[in-house]
Amino acid sequence: MNNRDERILLGHGSGGRLSHDLIKDILLPAFANPALAELHDGARLTAGGAKLAFTTDSYVVKPRFFPGGNIGKLAVCGTVNDLAVCGARPLYLSTGFIIEEGLPVSELREIVLAMRETARLAGVYIVTGDTKVVEKGAVDGMYINTAGIGLMLPHVDISARRVKPGQDIIVSGFLGDHAIAVMSERHGLTLPEKITSDCAPLNGLIQAILTEVPQVAMLRDPTRGGLATTLNEIAADAGLGMILEESAIPVRPEVAAVCDILGFDPLYLANEGKVIVFVEKEYSEKVLTIMKKDPLAASARVIGTVTGQLRGQVALRTTVGGIRLLDMLTGEQLPRIC
Amino acid sequence: MNNRDERILLGHGSGGRLSHDLIKDILLPAFANPALAELHDGARLTAGGAKLAFTTDSYVVKPRFFPGGNIGKLAVCGTVNDLAVCGARPLYLSTGFIIEEGLPVSELREIVLAMRETARLAGVYIVTGDTKVVEKGAVDGMYINTAGIGLMLPHVDISARRVKPGQDIIVSGFLGDHAIAVMSERHGLTLPEKITSDCAPLNGLIQAILTEVPQVAMLRDPTRGGLATTLNEIAADAGLGMILEESAIPVRPEVAAVCDILGFDPLYLANEGKVIVFVEKEYSEKVLTIMKKDPLAASARVIGTVTGQLRGQVALRTTVGGIRLLDMLTGEQLPRIC
Repeated sequence: MNNRDERILLGHGSGGRLSHDLIKDILLPAFANPALAELHDGARLTAGGAKLAFTTDSYVVKPRFFPGGNIGKLAVCGTVNDLAVCGARPLYLSTGFIIEEGLPVSELREIVLAMRETARLAGVYIVTGDTKVVEKGAVDGMYINTAGIGLMLPHVDISARRVKPGQDIIVSGFLGDHAIAVMSERHGLTLPEKITSDCAPLNGLIQAILTEVPQVAMLRDPTRGGLATTLNEIAADAGLGMILEESAIPVRPEVAAVCDILGFDPLYLANEGKVIVFVEKEYSEKVLTIMKKDPLAASARVIGTVTGQLRGQVALRTTVGGIRLLDMLTGEQLPRIC
Repeated sequence: MNNRDERILLGHGSGGRLSHDLIKDILLPAFANPALAELHDGARLTAGGAKLAFTTDSYVVKPRFFPGGNIGKLAVCGTVNDLAVCGARPLYLSTGFIIEEGLPVSELREIVLAMRETARLAGVYIVTGDTKVVEKGAVDGMYINTAGIGLMLPHVDISARRVKPGQDIIVSGFLGDHAIAVMSERHGLTLPEKITSDCAPLNGLIQAILTEVPQVAMLRDPTRGGLATTLNEIAADAGLGMILEESAIPVRPEVAAVCDILGFDPLYLANEGKVIVFVEKEYSEKVLTIMKKDPLAASARVIGTVTGQLRGQVALRTTVGGIRLLDMLTGEQLPRIC
């Protein structure tokens, strides 16, 4: 990013390759510090002797209401989940609203109530906030930022450094539901079966896993950029490869059908209620048993393994027996999906 | 706010009366919890045994570059100062960017460098972040949210509850510079003397005061809504009155002149580098001596006192000898000032 006339593209917010360039070229060098350098979903830090996780996300989803949720529910789930996959117990959230003049108060009320209900479900408190109102046209309705503080769980060390060859890669359920639900609502598509966003707080599920299996090496929620981009990031960080079995990857037939028609790849679609778990094979069954007890992870399964070959790359063994390399998302498949 | 057709107005983001209605009617009931109920500039909470402050603000200032700073510098100062006036030492910040497609990368770079420099000055780390890019027209250039974690200083209890009759009210310097600098830049006004934003991190100054005079009862930075709105909030929270001496309130002649011409009241203009201190009279001189050693507070002075009369109201003894009640800001004087 050294061209003087270069401009920000939608893809710089995709979570994929361009986002990485932006972070690596501009943000990391400017803000360089040990906590940021790890490039997790959240920073791990110490304050007053307490080991904490700290994370933030802004939510610009369009439309604000979609099957399975709204921007408020999403804003709480997203930040709760980012803390949980750091290996932290989410405690406190902040919320910053940027609202376009003219937004119906009733809509704000509905969004705020969804935040309350989701925070209650997740067992977190929204403790501080800010509201800015801008003139018509200066924001598209309403955006929400949430930041969150979590307390690091003891005896747990979630890190790409701990990903090792031979470990299983587990995904907690069907991929792409969130993106397809939002996209179909945005474009007024009627789907053969109603697909709803998977948007949900995962901290209960993740804490159950980590309490029983503290050996878990790595966790991530495959949001923007989807499974493929998330695994590429981890592969790059770990300096290892991954082999996925296409036949094992859970995608609902309805989602696959929409993807076929519209030219999307479900492996790159955003999820808001799924987690990827890296763990030694000997613990896989135990992790799966715990996951399947939770309705949020009833369809959990092993989708692949880590390998010492293919350094930094993710390969898919397709149902017809071929091997396809899955690159990081480049450009932007579905803007404003979260 | 019970009218079904009611809509959000610019004034709901002003920091004044309408903001209060929004918070009291919609946000507080939904998010009710002990940390939020105090309605400080930040929440005070405990995590893993550590006593922390946590705060957030979104920055939508227009234009993004103004005399004395830019949106990046503002985003760091604002959150650092909110932590400092809670009686905390600011430690860590998060940053969330919402960027309009097409923003020059060079501009982002300049804003990010201002954030780095300001964070360095304030001695805080920016440890986690998020970038969203939205399509042209969905945001006006770029907005930034910062959230911050601070460590509560020991032996200090900053609270409106501790404001008592007889205490002095000290302000750290000239009022209104930030608002007039931004406003004149926005409208292309040429001011007789160049007025620059006072945007600055105050944590060093405030920590110096609290270390030497832990008896300080209350601190606030008079941002949106200005001195008058901030004092009204404290008066209401404390259930006490305040009497200010107009002749003692520091306003630059150039700022007063612009206000005269344009019909603004400097007591309602936003500041981004000023602090109000409430302290028992016996400590006033000591506080002033400490403040005047810092260039950021060289013009500090006592502007009034707390009184047991006028409950919940703020009165101004004017230069001509009359008494004028200062109400909270209603509506919006200068939108997008921070």
